[in-house]
Amino acid sequence: MDFKSFSKQLETIAAITITPFDSKTKEINWEGVRENINFLVNNGVKVIVPCGNTSEFYALTLDEAKEEIKRTVEIVNGRALVVAGIGYSLKTAIELGKYAEEVGADCVMIHQPIHPFVTNEGVLSYYQQIIDAVNIPSIVYWKDPSLSDDVLKQLAHCERIVGVKYAINDLPRFAKLVQEVPNHHNITWICGTAEKWAPFFYFAGAKGFTSGLINVAPQKSFDMLHALQNNDQFKVWEVWRETLRFENLRAKYNNGNNVVVVKEAMAQIGLKSGVTREPVNPLSEEDRRQVIEILKMWDLQKLKR
Amino acid sequence: MDFKSFSKQLETIAAITITPFDSKTKEINWEGVRENINFLVNNGVKVIVPCGNTSEFYALTLDEAKEEIKRTVEIVNGRALVVAGIGYSLKTAIELGKYAEEVGADCVMIHQPIHPFVTNEGVLSYYQQIIDAVNIPSIVYWKDPSLSDDVLKQLAHCERIVGVKYAINDLPRFAKLVQEVPNHHNITWICGTAEKWAPFFYFAGAKGFTSGLINVAPQKSFDMLHALQNNDQFKVWEVWRETLRFENLRAKYNNGNNVVVVKEAMAQIGLKSGVTREPVNPLSEEDRRQVIEILKMWDLQKLKR
Repeated sequence: MDFKSFSKQLETIAAITITPFDSKTKEINWEGVRENINFLVNNGVKVIVPCGNTSEFYALTLDEAKEEIKRTVEIVNGRALVVAGIGYSLKTAIELGKYAEEVGADCVMIHQPIHPFVTNEGVLSYYQQIIDAVNIPSIVYWKDPSLSDDVLKQLAHCERIVGVKYAINDLPRFAKLVQEVPNHHNITWICGTAEKWAPFFYFAGAKGFTSGLINVAPQKSFDMLHALQNNDQFKVWEVWRETLRFENLRAKYNNGNNVVVVKEAMAQIGLKSGVTREPVNPLSEEDRRQVIEILKMWDLQKLKR
Repeated sequence: MDFKSFSKQLETIAAITITPFDSKTKEINWEGVRENINFLVNNGVKVIVPCGNTSEFYALTLDEAKEEIKRTVEIVNGRALVVAGIGYSLKTAIELGKYAEEVGADCVMIHQPIHPFVTNEGVLSYYQQIIDAVNIPSIVYWKDPSLSDDVLKQLAHCERIVGVKYAINDLPRFAKLVQEVPNHHNITWICGTAEKWAPFFYFAGAKGFTSGLINVAPQKSFDMLHALQNNDQFKVWEVWRETLRFENLRAKYNNGNNVVVVKEAMAQIGLKSGVTREPVNPLSEEDRRQVIEILKMWDLQKLKR
């Protein structure tokens, strides 16, 4: 496989899909999964990520996570890259990664380990062993500020690392890292904190970003990407301002609103998003009104699907 | 079941067991598990907790976690209470809890959810549903300072909650909570941050504490417990000073040393502790020397087993 050219395909928006749960049973609504993914693909999304945080990965059982990966690959059916989120213990992450490979996912995104005790050498070994055990390319999800970026510099030597989802909003730290990792490696740097932070990360070298908003308003996300690619400053900040209120509403309650705001907005425009699972709340009435206002501001009633 | 009198049995030290991994294969050394648990029981420990953080719960697969719970119950064989750590998604936590019940554990300890988005209502529902689904008593592990203690006040009404492992080192916050939860509930407050914090928590109302140190030096932990119970201030601070260096060494590298320091000390006194799994490092040579010095200071070569 040409990892360098694979990596280039990540210079876009990675759509973290939501997992629609039935409002009564809280079971996964697979028909909703199909509709939502088709909505993304039909709107030009080229990278689809099941089992990310916005997918409520940690509210899924392992069997459900596997099923979500498998069905996503089937539904996407080659129309975009599928990057499967994997994680948990080393053994479990490898099991999930091998499963993703087996059912035809194009890549895995390895979540930051959830272990309460993490060290630099330890996490290097964790990522390295997963990358070595899984034969499709890997993206490393990096979000714990207490770890050293030297871990990423060491991992960068591995040809199968095609991306880093960087989710620490420390721009000087990020810029330094990008400049210290040689260009000949296969890494596409991906802003892991979405539209709110994407412009700053782009300027520092992140050619892609992840998005939850894209599940609702793909045009907004693409407007931002294209404005960044065309260095159209006016448009960048215009879209940034438009999306900021939505992203700030998601950040409310220590990010407790992260998923439920996206789900509410999707429901408002007619997509099957369902409810969230524990330990996430339903949306408050006041926040629901804000979602509706934002959608009006975006003129999203007219959305063609 | 008389939950009130069960709860009283938690006014002691809860020993979080380590999981010994083979230094070559990193598989669980079950003979080591047996020896370590017998060491604890023979030294008077009355509450044994497999699958806690010091057990590297998050480095175990679900099958390994189940096996650890099952074997711990078998080895303890009624000589102490077994409190099984459970967690992950709601469904998975219930599955683990029902398993613990089935194999004869006395109680479960429900870990803080690992989900990156947690809300007060959401986490209340998460804990409540697990407590309702599992027929043995529950301890709630509480460590996220961004959540409201009102969640615990609401959970306190449930008779099956027999303890809260409180691991936020905000003593005024903790004292206020203890004073606001009526005494007729079945809760024993447990200091979740071990010997270093136990004296302060005890004064504020925590009659028990969890310990990793107890795997190495049960006498030290019991000296502290008994000194607290007898209000022997001189002895409390003497033991506190003796254990502080060990606990601070465990806290090094953002707690990266938490488990490996305990394992090294156990190995030094002849217990089967093995290595840690990823994402935790082996101990540095310098820190190993410190462990040896501390054990000398404690005169632990003479330990009777």
